[in-house]
Amino acid sequence: MTSESRKAIILLSGGLDSMVSAAIAAEQGYRLIALTVDYNQRHKIELQSAQKIAEKLGVDEHIILPLDLSRFGGSALTADIDVPKTGVADDIPVTYVPARNLIFLSLTLGLAEARDARDIFIGVNALDYSGYPDCRPEFIEGFERLADLATKAGDQGSGFTIQTPLQHMTKADIAREAIRLGLDPAWSWSCYDPAPGDLPCGLCDSCRLRQKGFEEAGIVDPTRYVT
Amino acid sequence: MTSESRKAIILLSGGLDSMVSAAIAAEQGYRLIALTVDYNQRHKIELQSAQKIAEKLGVDEHIILPLDLSRFGGSALTADIDVPKTGVADDIPVTYVPARNLIFLSLTLGLAEARDARDIFIGVNALDYSGYPDCRPEFIEGFERLADLATKAGDQGSGFTIQTPLQHMTKADIAREAIRLGLDPAWSWSCYDPAPGDLPCGLCDSCRLRQKGFEEAGIVDPTRYVT
Repeated sequence: MTSESRKAIILLSGGLDSMVSAAIAAEQGYRLIALTVDYNQRHKIELQSAQKIAEKLGVDEHIILPLDLSRFGGSALTADIDVPKTGVADDIPVTYVPARNLIFLSLTLGLAEARDARDIFIGVNALDYSGYPDCRPEFIEGFERLADLATKAGDQGSGFTIQTPLQHMTKADIAREAIRLGLDPAWSWSCYDPAPGDLPCGLCDSCRLRQKGFEEAGIVDPTRYVT
Repeated sequence: MTSESRKAIILLSGGLDSMVSAAIAAEQGYRLIALTVDYNQRHKIELQSAQKIAEKLGVDEHIILPLDLSRFGGSALTADIDVPKTGVADDIPVTYVPARNLIFLSLTLGLAEARDARDIFIGVNALDYSGYPDCRPEFIEGFERLADLATKAGDQGSGFTIQTPLQHMTKADIAREAIRLGLDPAWSWSCYDPAPGDLPCGLCDSCRLRQKGFEEAGIVDPTRYVT
């Protein structure tokens, strides 16, 4: 099997990072199967971006899977808790969604096994981020090991690889990578707490990190902010 | 905090094993929060059993969470593939659902963190079973380690325990345990492929293992079978 015909599952939130990660998979010659989880997030609008990105990248299949994590709550993204707007802090913020990346990667693994794909792309990075534990390399490495114990394919010696092409990039690197890959940053959505009229708030961690990245890279992000 | 006030999340499919596992948690003094996943399984009828068991055990909260794994397929339980009826084989059978226990445990972990519970009960056992990789002790141990890397609570030193009270029991042991705990086996549902009239088929692996267990234990299972 040549690399051109290999399939990859891409976890596509609709944010800048997942867009760039998916485009890197496409550049490497993978055929793409995209998974987006509609977890009843406050910023559901990112699902529209995921759809647009999937179309632009010409994926083979795009599954938007409803999974209502607001039934669990425990996060500013899934419960009635205010999204912090005062800047990126040192602690893990309340926008952390309990076990989210583990849940999403597990789903991605199930889809990979069902579609006979062995590569999974996720756009995590642990430099310009909010300190979420499930974005760190040691979590990803642990998941990769567990994937082989958790599955029939892994048990039969045909294991899975979790690809994290953005792991060691700054947000400025990611912004530059988007331009290099011919992506329009405006296709993607980062804001956690959209203002009326569907404009990014410009103040949440996710808006701040995005703005900082484009500024440092000296690239104009066509995204319009409310503030 | 006394053990009486501790909360446990119990993964409750509605089958015999998850019923007994949950009742053991109750016996140990935990307050129970039950999670049942409606994954569009062929034997959706088990959801009714889960509801009955949750009521009988007096759980604090019972979440039945829709998650349509038939969008992925790849299993006789979620796609148009026949359920084997000729007896338990050596290979991992087509009733294996890709990454199911990893997906379910990940969800349970998210719920545990959101509800500030640290114990998770799952009714896996690896003696009288269908050889599913995600029922084995090494998978559970791997998950427990990863849970601490995947979560804010784990990162802050307050880790999770995956309790598998049935891990080393035979099906006969589990049948005896059900009776000892005052459970009516008929509350639970095991069959993968219910016949018309909502009767268990009596021929799938799950029916066979259940029948064998009660027979070996010398206990009458009031469940009526179609064959």
